[in-house]
Amino acid sequence: MFTLEVRDHIMIAHSFRGAVFGPAQALHGATFVVDAAIMAKDIDANGIVADIGRAHDVLKALLATLNYKNLDDVPEFKGINTTTEFLARHICDRLADAARAGQFGREPRELSAIRVMLSESHVARASYETALW
Amino acid sequence: MFTLEVRDHIMIAHSFRGAVFGPAQALHGATFVVDAAIMAKDIDANGIVADIGRAHDVLKALLATLNYKNLDDVPEFKGINTTTEFLARHICDRLADAARAGQFGREPRELSAIRVMLSESHVARASYETALW
Amino acid sequence: MFTLEVRDHIMIAHSFRGAVFGPAQALHGATFVVDAAIMAKDIDANGIVADIGRAHDVLKALLATLNYKNLDDVPEFKGINTTTEFLARHICDRLADAARAGQFGREPRELSAIRVMLSESHVARASYETALW
Amino acid sequence: MFTLEVRDHIMIAHSFRGAVFGPAQALHGATFVVDAAIMAKDIDANGIVADIGRAHDVLKALLATLNYKNLDDVPEFKGINTTTEFLARHICDRLADAARAGQFGREPRELSAIRVMLSESHVARASYETALW
Amino acid sequence: MFTLEVRDHIMIAHSFRGAVFGPAQALHGATFVVDAAIMAKDIDANGIVADIGRAHDVLKALLATLNYKNLDDVPEFKGINTTTEFLARHICDRLADAARAGQFGREPRELSAIRVMLSESHVARASYETALW
Amino acid sequence: MFTLEVRDHIMIAHSFRGAVFGPAQALHGATFVVDAAIMAKDIDANGIVADIGRAHDVLKALLATLNYKNLDDVPEFKGINTTTEFLARHICDRLADAARAGQFGREPRELSAIRVMLSESHVARASYETALW
Repeated sequence: MFTLEVRDHIMIAHSFRGAVFGPAQALHGATFVVDAAIMAKDIDANGIVADIGRAHDVLKALLATLNYKNLDDVPEFKGINTTTEFLARHICDRLADAARAGQFGREPRELSAIRVMLSESHVARASYETALW
Repeated sequence: MFTLEVRDHIMIAHSFRGAVFGPAQALHGATFVVDAAIMAKDIDANGIVADIGRAHDVLKALLATLNYKNLDDVPEFKGINTTTEFLARHICDRLADAARAGQFGREPRELSAIRVMLSESHVARASYETALW
Repeated sequence: MFTLEVRDHIMIAHSFRGAVFGPAQALHGATFVVDAAIMAKDIDANGIVADIGRAHDVLKALLATLNYKNLDDVPEFKGINTTTEFLARHICDRLADAARAGQFGREPRELSAIRVMLSESHVARASYETALW
Repeated sequence: MFTLEVRDHIMIAHSFRGAVFGPAQALHGATFVVDAAIMAKDIDANGIVADIGRAHDVLKALLATLNYKNLDDVPEFKGINTTTEFLARHICDRLADAARAGQFGREPRELSAIRVMLSESHVARASYETALW
Repeated sequence: MFTLEVRDHIMIAHSFRGAVFGPAQALHGATFVVDAAIMAKDIDANGIVADIGRAHDVLKALLATLNYKNLDDVPEFKGINTTTEFLARHICDRLADAARAGQFGREPRELSAIRVMLSESHVARASYETALW
Repeated sequence: MFTLEVRDHIMIAHSFRGAVFGPAQALHGATFVVDAAIMAKDIDANGIVADIGRAHDVLKALLATLNYKNLDDVPEFKGINTTTEFLARHICDRLADAARAGQFGREPRELSAIRVMLSESHVARASYETALW
């Protein structure tokens, strides 16, 4: 199994509801360093899992919908705790859609899975992985 | 699959028995940067794999039993090489116990696995992963 | 010259005023990984620049006044852009006060300078350094 | 499952053929930081996955066949795009051969898999993993 | 003193002349992760050392003149060993020109110095620093 | 000013005397990741601060006198707290001797200073810098 990973980041504000979050119930923020992984059983005739330039571009375009925002004000996230875990899945699911739509320059059925890891600090991170088919 | 990871560290002394260890047969030491991962098929109603505050606290309390010690003098490890691999499993097994005891603020049966990685330097690390059920 | 550095972090929300900030004029947030450096011409009789335990504690207590907050709502910062540079100086100046007040377990006049670096992502950081005397 | 990882690096020149590579079709180069992982279901009587000294040595010897070269001039790679993915598999397959030949100081059948990750920059990396049996 | 740093990278091929370089006399390559630092005695009315967006853009534009090239074929570098140290100064000098030309969105005379660090691997790096006036 | 840095590491045991050290008064250990910096006003005719191969070798040979040891048993350190700060100066002073003895492949008088940083964990490090002349 091959994995190709590209990195970018977002800087967002948000707050959480629920006693479990303690002081993070207040409006605060985070830099999420995002590692997006594309997996495939084999490389193609060019010797690649996917077009790394497109992978960077697709990730950047997707992150632009979140970057420099207060996620509490994003209608799509109304009533949702935009935790690191939730955002990892959110970004992963949209990258999976992009993979299935052929946006990574690779025949979709030749790609196997997507994994997204969000590092929120030097001591905490979360990831989500999903099979494409 | 979701993964939540928290990081802490220990600074210990130990020695190894066996020609395979070469100069590490002498009493020496290590800083182990410990990445503890908790895995779950889904996030809960709060949007989390586990209570990250508790994850940090449980890990810190567990590491306190090892930190600033000469592991050669710890009765539990008598006659054992406390290698990076061994310690990764030791810490992982205790975190798995904590997970099964509900100490991470999540219904134990909703957690799937624990993985612990110990980085001993910028060029070497070891990890151990175990299913919870 | 000796330097001792300890690391911690904060997760805050804020917004900036001024066209130069582009999309960062909107309410967003950041994780700042904070490296606080204490400098001294010489080490003391114990062989240290400062008590590293106290250095961690003083830094953590100081960061607690910022952590999990929307800095736009902090009275002290009213009308101020809480940029990475500004926060580096803010934290540095308060650590310098702590150094001069003897809170690092070292005779204040034996310490020379404080430097604080804030990493806001894997591609950007800012620092501020000040002499103590 | 246990994993032991060691790190080394190579500095090579190469070029790629295919429009998908854009400016990387020109002769350029890369530092690849190589993380080689050896996996085993259990540790041996010494408490280890493998002899970490041998793991470092085997990896270094293998990388010496690539280091400081223009890969376009290596007969073995004639007509091949030596992408990060390709090189990850190339190195992984040779480490797998070494594992099966008993070069890691561990009974070959007690080792399970090899994984190699090549980091080409702070924002991109690729890996390949193969079962040994 | 304030410092603002931004990071980018280049992937180049080159060779060196001189016995001191050993195997690096052959055509090989490197990824250089570039940390460009802009220094100023004070921040401006916006609270910044410089416009970080422009800093990223100026650095990227400058690196584009080197990226994906065989530096042995660049006329400007004819007969020169394009070592990590040389390239650090080369990039630093051009960023200094940009600073003096007002390209960082800050009054040039309010900026003090430029420093560029090139990391060529996880175990080696070089930097060059120059005063602006 | 140019700086060339190379990295290596040691794994040692030691204990400290003095209430300021708290639990670190017990025999424990550390991995120190060592960054050794050689500074020069200018590069030589080859385009380098020093011979990086020799820098790696000199550092490795020096660290071999400390690696895999209990520093409490090293006669040279009898009655001394081998703190991170102390070891940074110890290593720095010996590298300075090496520089003045011409071991880095550069005319000694053309080198300016040596700086050594020891990272003891992901949250703490210390450094020492000395002028050569």
